[in-house]
Amino acid sequence: MTDIAKPYLLFLADAENPALAKTALGVRDWAREDCVGQLRLTPSTIDIGLPDLTPSEAAARGARSLLIGVAPVGGQLPEAWQTILLAALEAGLDIVSGLHVRLEAFPALAEAAARLGRTLHNVRHSDTVFPVATGRKRTGRRLLMVGTDCALGKKYTALALTKAMRERGIDATFRATGQTGIMIAGGGIAIDAVVADFIAGAAETLSPDAAPDHWDVIEGQGALFHPAYAGVTLGLLHGSQPDALVLCHDPARSVTSFFPDYPLPTLEAAIAAYLPHAQRTNPAARFVGVSLNTSALDEDTARRALEDAHARTGLPVFDPLRFGIEAVVDEMLSGPFQAAVAAA
Amino acid sequence: MTDIAKPYLLFLADAENPALAKTALGVRDWAREDCVGQLRLTPSTIDIGLPDLTPSEAAARGARSLLIGVAPVGGQLPEAWQTILLAALEAGLDIVSGLHVRLEAFPALAEAAARLGRTLHNVRHSDTVFPVATGRKRTGRRLLMVGTDCALGKKYTALALTKAMRERGIDATFRATGQTGIMIAGGGIAIDAVVADFIAGAAETLSPDAAPDHWDVIEGQGALFHPAYAGVTLGLLHGSQPDALVLCHDPARSVTSFFPDYPLPTLEAAIAAYLPHAQRTNPAARFVGVSLNTSALDEDTARRALEDAHARTGLPVFDPLRFGIEAVVDEMLSGPFQAAVAAA
Repeated sequence: MTDIAKPYLLFLADAENPALAKTALGVRDWAREDCVGQLRLTPSTIDIGLPDLTPSEAAARGARSLLIGVAPVGGQLPEAWQTILLAALEAGLDIVSGLHVRLEAFPALAEAAARLGRTLHNVRHSDTVFPVATGRKRTGRRLLMVGTDCALGKKYTALALTKAMRERGIDATFRATGQTGIMIAGGGIAIDAVVADFIAGAAETLSPDAAPDHWDVIEGQGALFHPAYAGVTLGLLHGSQPDALVLCHDPARSVTSFFPDYPLPTLEAAIAAYLPHAQRTNPAARFVGVSLNTSALDEDTARRALEDAHARTGLPVFDPLRFGIEAVVDEMLSGPFQAAVAAA
Repeated sequence: MTDIAKPYLLFLADAENPALAKTALGVRDWAREDCVGQLRLTPSTIDIGLPDLTPSEAAARGARSLLIGVAPVGGQLPEAWQTILLAALEAGLDIVSGLHVRLEAFPALAEAAARLGRTLHNVRHSDTVFPVATGRKRTGRRLLMVGTDCALGKKYTALALTKAMRERGIDATFRATGQTGIMIAGGGIAIDAVVADFIAGAAETLSPDAAPDHWDVIEGQGALFHPAYAGVTLGLLHGSQPDALVLCHDPARSVTSFFPDYPLPTLEAAIAAYLPHAQRTNPAARFVGVSLNTSALDEDTARRALEDAHARTGLPVFDPLRFGIEAVVDEMLSGPFQAAVAAA
């Protein structure tokens, strides 16, 4: 399991387009208190509102890691970046990377990290050996995001729910299963990088036994209907043993992203498909809400989408970035969980 | 994708118990024409009915690879074996291993293989980088084994069906997804060793576009109901895009092996669970038979189990090692496939 030293210096390189800086923006939005500053290579690089710092200035202010917050074109590591990364290692920082290429593939970085005793985190990769899942029911409560597709708001929904639960005084932990989530949380497991035999075992490792009133809020991955990634989704579902599920959906999307021949299921069909698999490892599993990503819709259309989803599922429906999520938290805490929380 | 040079010299070491020599026995039973001889370290080692040969005698008779046909206690590589493996490399043979430990972990073997230009096959591991699945429908026909549990006859069923189909003149290829299957076929993909994101992509690679009347008969893995391995099963199912499915079951088993808290589904429930997932990537997918492993039952009980399974599913039911499988092949070739085969 990845375990990253915080706080961060966010490296923005020369990115001028916010779309290239999604990782940095996600970390700034959801872990602002863990961000000491930003490092920009040119005056026209986007400014995400943090102090501009060199690696040594950041280290002096307490930074522990430089986080590569932008995606280079092609997924490789530009020559110009290596100078900065070497300076960061020399200044006492670890490096956190979500690139496809491993940082150790660059001999100068590997040598410097070894000489200085720094850690190179490749959060897209998994070097941990996980056990085969046991299927044993664990103590504590678990909430898992599932979806009708990839990339429609599972991570943001999980983070928003964690925040809302904590504000109510509930002991909740966000559990990251993808690279940006791991950077935000400072730990987690890139579940899609695990060897296939150990997906459910890794998911069991990610949310271990906990106090009866503790909630793990687990970032989902993929979709049960996805022609490429459904295996990851099912293993994560089985290993997570969720008590509660939130279905994430983008009402502006009718087919699977990048797979136009694969229509998305209706909300009702998605719930009906997920539930028996969830109940295989936790017979008490149930859906407690629907999270709609309404970013493509105007206010009126978005509200109608929420009403429609509620009418079809009977569940509280929300957009975590736009409309309140209190009703979902109420639903989650009702029924079988109420007693445990009230007793806490 | 693994591609192994045949024929084999089967290495039995000092195994006295047939249970330890399951790999060698499977290869002998299903690829007898690919076995030049056996290599036994002691007179009390089991004799599987092949000529006793040294590595150089085997090489002189055309052997291309020494296959480790026994499982050492603990999964490691005993010192005494290394001498034999080195002699095999010197004699011109590659080495085929299903051990957990990689052969390269032993410096003497790695050095000899590099110096002599031999290949060390670790069929339990996957070193190939597979693409993400595309979901694109491929040409040719596919038959996939699925099950209610692990280790109940999926490989033997696939091999027996391949044999029966070939005897009818059908162009059929066995596609191995596990280590013993790979050794028998001389190729395949250890699907459970693939990185999670690429399970379906590896399955697509395993059964590529083929002639319209060609059948790939794909060895299954795991079960959709298995608390540890369901992710592997679902990715393999999606990527295989089977036209036809055979459900494998052991009627003497009521709970999942090694997971006593997980009851097995009924045959009807298993078919109902698999079918919608299969139809996601191939809307024409249908079940064509049920394969029962009746090895634990006497003749009368076995026949009653077959009748019961037929009454409950309406499908042809067989035990590939005991009762004929012709009705399943008939069913598979009926309906939508008949025209393609008749035209062949």
